[in-house]
Amino acid sequence: MSDPQQLSTQEREQGTQFAPRFDSRGLITAVVVHEETKDVLVVAHMNAEALALTRETGRVHFWSRSRGKLWLKGETSGHYLNLREIRVDCDQDALVIVAEPAGPTCHTGEQSCFYRRINPTADDASALVKVKT
Amino acid sequence: MSDPQQLSTQEREQGTQFAPRFDSRGLITAVVVHEETKDVLVVAHMNAEALALTRETGRVHFWSRSRGKLWLKGETSGHYLNLREIRVDCDQDALVIVAEPAGPTCHTGEQSCFYRRINPTADDASALVKVKT
Repeated sequence: MSDPQQLSTQEREQGTQFAPRFDSRGLITAVVVHEETKDVLVVAHMNAEALALTRETGRVHFWSRSRGKLWLKGETSGHYLNLREIRVDCDQDALVIVAEPAGPTCHTGEQSCFYRRINPTADDASALVKVKT
Repeated sequence: MSDPQQLSTQEREQGTQFAPRFDSRGLITAVVVHEETKDVLVVAHMNAEALALTRETGRVHFWSRSRGKLWLKGETSGHYLNLREIRVDCDQDALVIVAEPAGPTCHTGEQSCFYRRINPTADDASALVKVKT
């Protein structure tokens, strides 16, 4: 396998080699979507170890930036995200993780972390409206 | 309006005030999803100006990290992303932008930047499989 850092733009963007690009902090953005509803459940980050563990165990792992540690999603709540598929974008610096959630994904108890939308006609001070997720 | 930086965790996570948290670079992650198919089209970043212009013009703007400049998506291709809705996550450090794309979103000509999935039984050197988007 060629060194991922040595891939040409065309190889990276249109080839078959999976060569994720971690940023200067060693992280890649991971967008988790629900297998059935396709709702975006959570946006978080993975380091190489979290990505490897996700692929090995079939359960989504992240790197928690706030806690500075590896994070098996659901490790305390039991609300695991069971891996179904990983997609990568053209320049391989973001992942879409298709998953089946074992419970609410958001720590607030909502199914998705994105449970509020902006009301475009309201002031920002009172713009957020809860949506069903 | 209270200062967004002064919000309590509960106010930020469960309140009605839109108070996006830009990171140390002044950026927030924006996940654009297709209004109808719900496919994730692109993951990019917005600074405060890009977010403001998106809301004002109804066309999605980003901050291009590679070019270091504001970026109206579609400004050269005509493939604008027409804004339909903005959602924010619990801790207000990521946005989901629901949009109607005026053409293929990916610069490769694909509808979505996430047009490759990982074949879990293949070596990484040849793991990426093109999917229909």
